[in-house]
Amino acid sequence: MRVEERELFKSYFKNLTPRERAVFEGGITLGALFHQFVGTPVSLKNREILERAIEESMRNQPCVQDISVKIVGDLKEDEYISLEGKMLDVKLKVKVENTVASLRLKYIEELNYPLMYVEKIEEK
Amino acid sequence: MRVEERELFKSYFKNLTPRERAVFEGGITLGALFHQFVGTPVSLKNREILERAIEESMRNQPCVQDISVKIVGDLKEDEYISLEGKMLDVKLKVKVENTVASLRLKYIEELNYPLMYVEKIEEK
Amino acid sequence: MRVEERELFKSYFKNLTPRERAVFEGGITLGALFHQFVGTPVSLKNREILERAIEESMRNQPCVQDISVKIVGDLKEDEYISLEGKMLDVKLKVKVENTVASLRLKYIEELNYPLMYVEKIEEK
Amino acid sequence: MRVEERELFKSYFKNLTPRERAVFEGGITLGALFHQFVGTPVSLKNREILERAIEESMRNQPCVQDISVKIVGDLKEDEYISLEGKMLDVKLKVKVENTVASLRLKYIEELNYPLMYVEKIEEK
Repeated sequence: MRVEERELFKSYFKNLTPRERAVFEGGITLGALFHQFVGTPVSLKNREILERAIEESMRNQPCVQDISVKIVGDLKEDEYISLEGKMLDVKLKVKVENTVASLRLKYIEELNYPLMYVEKIEEK
Repeated sequence: MRVEERELFKSYFKNLTPRERAVFEGGITLGALFHQFVGTPVSLKNREILERAIEESMRNQPCVQDISVKIVGDLKEDEYISLEGKMLDVKLKVKVENTVASLRLKYIEELNYPLMYVEKIEEK
Repeated sequence: MRVEERELFKSYFKNLTPRERAVFEGGITLGALFHQFVGTPVSLKNREILERAIEESMRNQPCVQDISVKIVGDLKEDEYISLEGKMLDVKLKVKVENTVASLRLKYIEELNYPLMYVEKIEEK
Repeated sequence: MRVEERELFKSYFKNLTPRERAVFEGGITLGALFHQFVGTPVSLKNREILERAIEESMRNQPCVQDISVKIVGDLKEDEYISLEGKMLDVKLKVKVENTVASLRLKYIEELNYPLMYVEKIEEK
């Protein structure tokens, strides 16, 4: 991005505090990840490279500082399934200025729901 | 959702202000919408029903108060294309307690980028 | 499409019989449908419009003559889930010259697998 | 898969010749690949791992013998975009009994269309 573009880009977010911007960008990235990759064929053979590829694609998103993706659940030898939301365990850190939001996507059994939430927001 | 589930659900968000929760949920919904529907075959024939179906599917997401989806750009008679992010113009309202965040997904030509941003946050 | 384009387009398929072309295009459409829409938020409120929108988007694909999409499975009042492959029951007719292939996407319980297959191929 | 499942699975395809089955499965895999991954954030940093992850996920699909995925097009330093269909150059081999179908997904400029077609079908 050129300087003028960067300034224009920033101007769209001047109405948000760093905390608000961090959770906004974190929300986008979790929503994007879930809806981009749910449905992907996954087996014991490609689970690991898929985890890494999801991480690396999401590192492109604005303000992502770090991300770890685990595909959980029992995959059987010689079978593949379509990736489901409940199989995703994602830890995401989003940094805006000195604020770092730690977010999570994780299946919560009591809710029967793959929940996206904010674990903590810190000033570094 | 049963009462206990609703309480458990809420407990995951008690570390966020209503403004933060509103932009977090708004971010999730915009990220989800983009990555779920980009790629869908679209032509003059199905543009309108696709707009309505995207709106109705996203109304399911937590805290969505209102949403309007427009698929913009020139579609030619007798042709179809894959929906691109730059064709999406989305207005989204997310309500948390008395706070309403108005969000937008819109292609910004100067940035050559389909931008997701927060237009305003109001107390109602 | 202009005449020259149509000719060029057709030239890519001259090595296939009408039967082969019909099942090839049918396979594309079923694979596309599954992987485009799995993950979409669905509830009792938007099930029907989503079914219609999937049908209409897939009618754009080459050679599709008719399609019917049913989203099956128990959806509970006040809840939404992400559309899963096993919830899709799709009947698709693909026509190439005088050949009509009838295809199906349907969850087969004994296989625990949403199967795509060809029900019959007819000369009309 | 257990033996009975394998037999049941096969029974669904006994109305197709090996050539027909090969192009049917090939069509499914190309349609699936396109609609699963279009929209994924891609840059110079994650292009290669995304290519490999797409290949490995599609190797899970029935009858896939070999696949190579190239993401083509100019990606600029410090920028990312959403993967578009026209950026995909895919070579796929599908094997059914002794029949091998070689398929392709490739953007055809004269058609302004990412075309899926069958390059050849061979008896091995």
